[in-house]
Amino acid sequence: MSLLEFDVIKQYFSKISQSASTSNISLAIGDDAAIVSIPDNMELVICTDTLNEGIHFPVGTLAYDIAYKALMVNLSDIASMGAVPQWFTLNISLPEIKTTWLEEFSKGLADLAGKYDINLIGGDTTRGPMSITITIAGHVKCNSGLKRSAAKVGDKIYVSGCTGEAAYGLACLTGSVPLKCEDHEFVSRLNRPTARVELGIGLLDVANACIDISDGLLADISHIAEASHCGIQLYLDKIPTPKINDMKQAQQYALSGGDDYELVFTVAEKNQQALNNLIKDLDFDITCIGEVVEQTGVRLLDVDNNLVNLDILGYQHFS
Amino acid sequence: MSLLEFDVIKQYFSKISQSASTSNISLAIGDDAAIVSIPDNMELVICTDTLNEGIHFPVGTLAYDIAYKALMVNLSDIASMGAVPQWFTLNISLPEIKTTWLEEFSKGLADLAGKYDINLIGGDTTRGPMSITITIAGHVKCNSGLKRSAAKVGDKIYVSGCTGEAAYGLACLTGSVPLKCEDHEFVSRLNRPTARVELGIGLLDVANACIDISDGLLADISHIAEASHCGIQLYLDKIPTPKINDMKQAQQYALSGGDDYELVFTVAEKNQQALNNLIKDLDFDITCIGEVVEQTGVRLLDVDNNLVNLDILGYQHFS
Repeated sequence: MSLLEFDVIKQYFSKISQSASTSNISLAIGDDAAIVSIPDNMELVICTDTLNEGIHFPVGTLAYDIAYKALMVNLSDIASMGAVPQWFTLNISLPEIKTTWLEEFSKGLADLAGKYDINLIGGDTTRGPMSITITIAGHVKCNSGLKRSAAKVGDKIYVSGCTGEAAYGLACLTGSVPLKCEDHEFVSRLNRPTARVELGIGLLDVANACIDISDGLLADISHIAEASHCGIQLYLDKIPTPKINDMKQAQQYALSGGDDYELVFTVAEKNQQALNNLIKDLDFDITCIGEVVEQTGVRLLDVDNNLVNLDILGYQHFS
Repeated sequence: MSLLEFDVIKQYFSKISQSASTSNISLAIGDDAAIVSIPDNMELVICTDTLNEGIHFPVGTLAYDIAYKALMVNLSDIASMGAVPQWFTLNISLPEIKTTWLEEFSKGLADLAGKYDINLIGGDTTRGPMSITITIAGHVKCNSGLKRSAAKVGDKIYVSGCTGEAAYGLACLTGSVPLKCEDHEFVSRLNRPTARVELGIGLLDVANACIDISDGLLADISHIAEASHCGIQLYLDKIPTPKINDMKQAQQYALSGGDDYELVFTVAEKNQQALNNLIKDLDFDITCIGEVVEQTGVRLLDVDNNLVNLDILGYQHFS
């Protein structure tokens, strides 16, 4: 595919390579490698995610949505570190070159790259089963990046927006639950998630630990507990749930559904006021759902402060 | 695969994350992203390559060799820019988790990472058809990275080692030519190529333009011609060829065979002595194969200075 590769890159991806206003890119697409710099007193935050057809998105997902999501899940990792996104590389494997598909794909990528003012600086286009890998970089002030390992006992735990909506959208799409007219917003949450980039940046001087929720609220919170060597206590009735009729099902989606790309973070008592100031400017909810405790593990309490058996809700491995 | 993913990463890849001696990595595997810095007056060189089973390596290739090659092809891009490799990320899609395969794969990766003193700083492990994406970064002094666009009329053109050997090795493996005992070195050239990292670094103050040969000598040289807005004249009898009986076949492999990861570069008259000094310390050949000329395009001349018809040799698209 080597000759074709260059045609594809030139035709569809070059414009995404020249759109951003950053001055930190010396050499972008078109050589063996790109060359970039970092401003003084900044560090580079790097992460990468792969989406495979049939695994991470259903066969038949719109090319625009695949591109959008592939970039957005990476932006979400950048958000969880409090970094400002800068540039990304794209590795795309396709069984064949379909120009309409590529047009839509590059449009999805360009739209989102434009929204965040970031550049495509390189990549690789190969033949193979459909697979998209994006590697993204952001800038953050030296020694200030948010980590999952910095939660402190006594911190309150917050979640942005609502988790479980994307998983419910997937259930609608795959026929596990009947798709009703009003469910299209859940499908949209699945296909066009929103990374909380501005929130992450705002949390830099406010939060102790932070993680983005890609695998489910409980699963990802358990990473904070483990990395921070502490425990986490959650209050079931405080956790925002998808607005569907079956409350128990809603809670299950909220606790274990992945793909929402909300942030969960911990804030010390002394920073509560700073958090309140930050929240005022947001157009989505921030909800306190629990606190960081000494006893390791993740525990869920009901409204009467009784321990909820996570196994009954369908979870394991979170002890 | 999310829980399994963490197990895999911890078990097989953590050691590659802590092996290198660099002090520029603040946070490696284990968070949503890695955090790195760049020394003063240096830039970051970034490139990425994907290898898909059945496309870039035959089904049944040893896991050790797949890992080795996946990292090496990226090191070769770093080499072509004259950069010093620093760290890399790994995205690996596998249809299933086989521990013996992962052990061998991680060993291949660790051996090569150790050789170049580089760290694995992050990645993504997913389910899917076998596919390996590595994104690698190196350091180079500001404004000194070698580019394919900097060839000047009058430069001599050099190639390291010998091209076509890997392609002949592939022909042996796939049965296009009968595999003889002495051909195993060609297969080894295919499966365990050597990136010319030290040569690339040595060329920083010596060469004008440089590119690594992944798609074939003529194809990659044409990128130099195109990017530098000049022409390239090659002398067929000067081009090193694989040591096989059929001379015409040997020349075809040398001119169009990919996957050798040698460097081709251009050197101005004033830097010939510096190049001679550099060559003295190398344990492989550097051969002058042509020169940069004004008339655009790539031309191949025979020993009588007659134009060789590239179409007859099986090439097109290099006008």
